[in-house]
Amino acid sequence: MKPTIRDVAKMAEVSISTVSRVMNAPETVIESKRSRVMDAIQTLQYQPNAFARGLIYKKSFTLGLLIPDIENLYFAGVIRGMQDACIKLGYSLMICNTDRDKERLLSYIDAFHEKQVDGIVFASDVLYPEYYEKLVGCRIPFVLVSSHSDEYDIPCVEIDDEVAAYDAVKFLIELGHKQIGMIGFNHDNSISGPPRYDGFVRALNEFGLEHNVEKIKFANHRFEHAYQAAHELFTEYPEITAVFCVADEFAMGTISYLKDRNIHVPGQVSVVGFDNLRMSTMFIPKLTTIAQPIYDLGYRAAEKIHELLTTGSVEVKREKMEHKLIVRESSREK
Amino acid sequence: MKPTIRDVAKMAEVSISTVSRVMNAPETVIESKRSRVMDAIQTLQYQPNAFARGLIYKKSFTLGLLIPDIENLYFAGVIRGMQDACIKLGYSLMICNTDRDKERLLSYIDAFHEKQVDGIVFASDVLYPEYYEKLVGCRIPFVLVSSHSDEYDIPCVEIDDEVAAYDAVKFLIELGHKQIGMIGFNHDNSISGPPRYDGFVRALNEFGLEHNVEKIKFANHRFEHAYQAAHELFTEYPEITAVFCVADEFAMGTISYLKDRNIHVPGQVSVVGFDNLRMSTMFIPKLTTIAQPIYDLGYRAAEKIHELLTTGSVEVKREKMEHKLIVRESSREK
Repeated sequence: MKPTIRDVAKMAEVSISTVSRVMNAPETVIESKRSRVMDAIQTLQYQPNAFARGLIYKKSFTLGLLIPDIENLYFAGVIRGMQDACIKLGYSLMICNTDRDKERLLSYIDAFHEKQVDGIVFASDVLYPEYYEKLVGCRIPFVLVSSHSDEYDIPCVEIDDEVAAYDAVKFLIELGHKQIGMIGFNHDNSISGPPRYDGFVRALNEFGLEHNVEKIKFANHRFEHAYQAAHELFTEYPEITAVFCVADEFAMGTISYLKDRNIHVPGQVSVVGFDNLRMSTMFIPKLTTIAQPIYDLGYRAAEKIHELLTTGSVEVKREKMEHKLIVRESSREK
Repeated sequence: MKPTIRDVAKMAEVSISTVSRVMNAPETVIESKRSRVMDAIQTLQYQPNAFARGLIYKKSFTLGLLIPDIENLYFAGVIRGMQDACIKLGYSLMICNTDRDKERLLSYIDAFHEKQVDGIVFASDVLYPEYYEKLVGCRIPFVLVSSHSDEYDIPCVEIDDEVAAYDAVKFLIELGHKQIGMIGFNHDNSISGPPRYDGFVRALNEFGLEHNVEKIKFANHRFEHAYQAAHELFTEYPEITAVFCVADEFAMGTISYLKDRNIHVPGQVSVVGFDNLRMSTMFIPKLTTIAQPIYDLGYRAAEKIHELLTTGSVEVKREKMEHKLIVRESSREK
């Protein structure tokens, strides 16, 4: 049998309520009793019951994380950061993989509700009205990471996607490229698709290269789609010498396509990615890319939901973290 | 205020215990009352309290998963499979990333204990005595995935690592290679390291190529270490024309090294990986590899812990799943 709070009280020769106070408000218990209780807890290897604790405090000390695709290395980095912050802050982390399926996502919110998670972090996906209404209906506080909402007033942590895309394209322009294409996210189901496209267009306009704004193909979130998009882009615009890809996976798909067409990267075409996944240094050639502070985004998201849960609000509603261009082997002067 | 079971009982004009029975043993409640209760639950959007449910049943309907490295794509696949099985079986999944840190792993077991998870799946790591004792001490049932234990009698799901490695090496031998090296896992902290080495040695012996058994270098679990190990292997044995790598990440590290030395894969050296990660088709060249049924391993592990929790035992204690050699671009006839 597992030891109970009753066993602890008996061994320490105190009341059950004293044991409870030692665990939850130790400063209210005199030192001699407190140390007897601590000794008994140690000796019996007593673990307070999370259910019972939850009933008293209405807190589960658990956070939920909703991610769209566990097989995307971007989220692995976010999870690492969030989990480290959770350890520091005393939460357990429950991770659910939605596969970008609305039904599944809504059912996970139900599961989180049933488990009474204290708060939810919602990653990299559009906050559709049905998600928002469900979360508000369940009265679960939540924050967004690598996402934001223009419609709803929800705290978030992200980078400045427009500026990051601008920086990538400006870099290609300054290398001397004049024929520049882009592999972007479909705008209708992507949170970072539109601002990254805006950054592309702004850089082109600023340097008098507006003739490129049509040279864009869209892909879903995977390598294979980017391979196909690259095929369409280069078939339609064979003059392109540089491509801005809004994800490292897209850069890898584009380079794979070019390799299969015997077009050398970076000799004939420069490619810039986005994210700085661990894979970007493993790929051949190593990717020039916009580094997101992936780990830090996850870490900050956990801190932000904690801030919201403990203070009822957050100091910085829409927090932007720094990105950085990292130059490796997939880009070269024109 | 959230609606309570009391509110449901009042609206349905039944007792609280009737509401409880509708939720937990509906066949014991007559139809007319049952439908009144269901209507009230619907109208009030009542969610049963998981804590209270846990106190009654002493079940949390939550499983814990311990993985060594969330940034290794192998585990992403295992998580997908486990999570799909959990949805089917009615569990939530709590995932913890240990970073192969003993202290952290032990503290996660404490957290699982505190949250009263019903069972734990322990992935791809050696079951050290201190882990075993902690789990047994906490009285949490557990199973192993991509791991096993010779010391302790614990249910597990894995592939046959020895045969899989044998198949990979035999394939290289049948391509005509006579100078064959290996990049393996360090034996002292790896569960699949020794059997994969044994498979390498058995294939060499069977085909009279024993002179290769010394041609092995060890790496930890990451790309960068494999790059370094490949450097050591080819410096010491420049005659090698084929390498068996015990992980796709090692194959990618080895190919990167060879690329930097201007040694062509597969023109001069053939490389076979292990796992069949999603990355193995994205890499240039696409990897020839031993495919593990990664998703299915995760799925079966969840089913196995469920079997253990619901029946008290498992039918197949040490379950082996099928592997398969997939030939792509990184290997060629000698």
